[in-house]
Amino acid sequence: MKYTDPFEIEKKSFLIIRKNLKKEHKPGYFDIVTRVIHATADFEFEELLRFKNDPISVFKETVKNGANIVVDTKMIKAGISNKFLEKYNVKVKCYIDDEDVINQAKISNCTRSILAMKKAIEEKNNDIFVIGNAPTALFTLCSYIENSSFLPKLVIGVPVGFVGAQESKEVLNLLDVPSITTKGRKGGSTVAVAIVNALFRLLEE
Amino acid sequence: MKYTDPFEIEKKSFLIIRKNLKKEHKPGYFDIVTRVIHATADFEFEELLRFKNDPISVFKETVKNGANIVVDTKMIKAGISNKFLEKYNVKVKCYIDDEDVINQAKISNCTRSILAMKKAIEEKNNDIFVIGNAPTALFTLCSYIENSSFLPKLVIGVPVGFVGAQESKEVLNLLDVPSITTKGRKGGSTVAVAIVNALFRLLEE
Repeated sequence: MKYTDPFEIEKKSFLIIRKNLKKEHKPGYFDIVTRVIHATADFEFEELLRFKNDPISVFKETVKNGANIVVDTKMIKAGISNKFLEKYNVKVKCYIDDEDVINQAKISNCTRSILAMKKAIEEKNNDIFVIGNAPTALFTLCSYIENSSFLPKLVIGVPVGFVGAQESKEVLNLLDVPSITTKGRKGGSTVAVAIVNALFRLLEE
Repeated sequence: MKYTDPFEIEKKSFLIIRKNLKKEHKPGYFDIVTRVIHATADFEFEELLRFKNDPISVFKETVKNGANIVVDTKMIKAGISNKFLEKYNVKVKCYIDDEDVINQAKISNCTRSILAMKKAIEEKNNDIFVIGNAPTALFTLCSYIENSSFLPKLVIGVPVGFVGAQESKEVLNLLDVPSITTKGRKGGSTVAVAIVNALFRLLEE
């Protein structure tokens, strides 16, 4: 086989992934699991991904007629397919380079990740939150959900790392909000992007 | 420990990573290995990362007074720290949304990944190539290096995937060009970004 046709490459890749899965997955969940494995070449994600309160249906309902998605990194913003965003009139917003956030970080003891999340929550017109990097951002979001009347439609919380990441995802998974998370340390921007693009693809079906 | 101070989180994270490494790494290589593990929470990268023809010194020399870095995804472009780019007058260029590339892809049998790589090579003022996604892009680059007088200063070739990715990295590793690659299927934009930002940090020391 010559490796020149991306459609052939993709088709063959998914055949290999499918053959190596250890268990059956419900429709929809199957698509997300395989997309994340495709993006990482890491079969551990089959065991790590966790879905709560029917996130796929919620995503479909929320996005059908436009929605705002908040992300914690510019990498996630860059990775979500423009084709889907234009088609469904969805906006992706990353507040990490926001002027207010930068200025506030200079005069407070607070990090940009936390301040960016606070601003995103306070703007009140944001529906879906995607966190792939900062446990502090996910802790902030979870604390708003627990302690105020703020309730996002869906949270994709997959921070990666050795300190706080796992704990922040456990907190999210205890909340009564639709969510997609990973168990343990693994996650990251690539995983977040694979999940969001897989959700859009499910909307296309 | 409260998970609010990102510097504390990072410090503790690297202590955990250091403690769990299986072998000694040369200075510089150690920094890249630990940064990639930090970005992925995947210790396999300790065994997978591969360095050829002194890539760290080459990066330092190339970037000291400005350079152009070509990347194959917008995610990589978004992930490389602006702080470093500004300080060293380095430009990051991604040709995937280039108008020529899009138009050519419509009228030819060729993919945007391949056409983007060709354009980047033909512009002749690009020094470092970073490929985190498309094996076809890395195959194209390797074929130019083998068959023409084109010789980039450094190639970071870490496409991820099940078909072609591993093979493209093997081809790169056989060439007499400074490179950083991974063995096997794993890699991706997150890994590419971790490597590039680690290289910039080494320049700071």
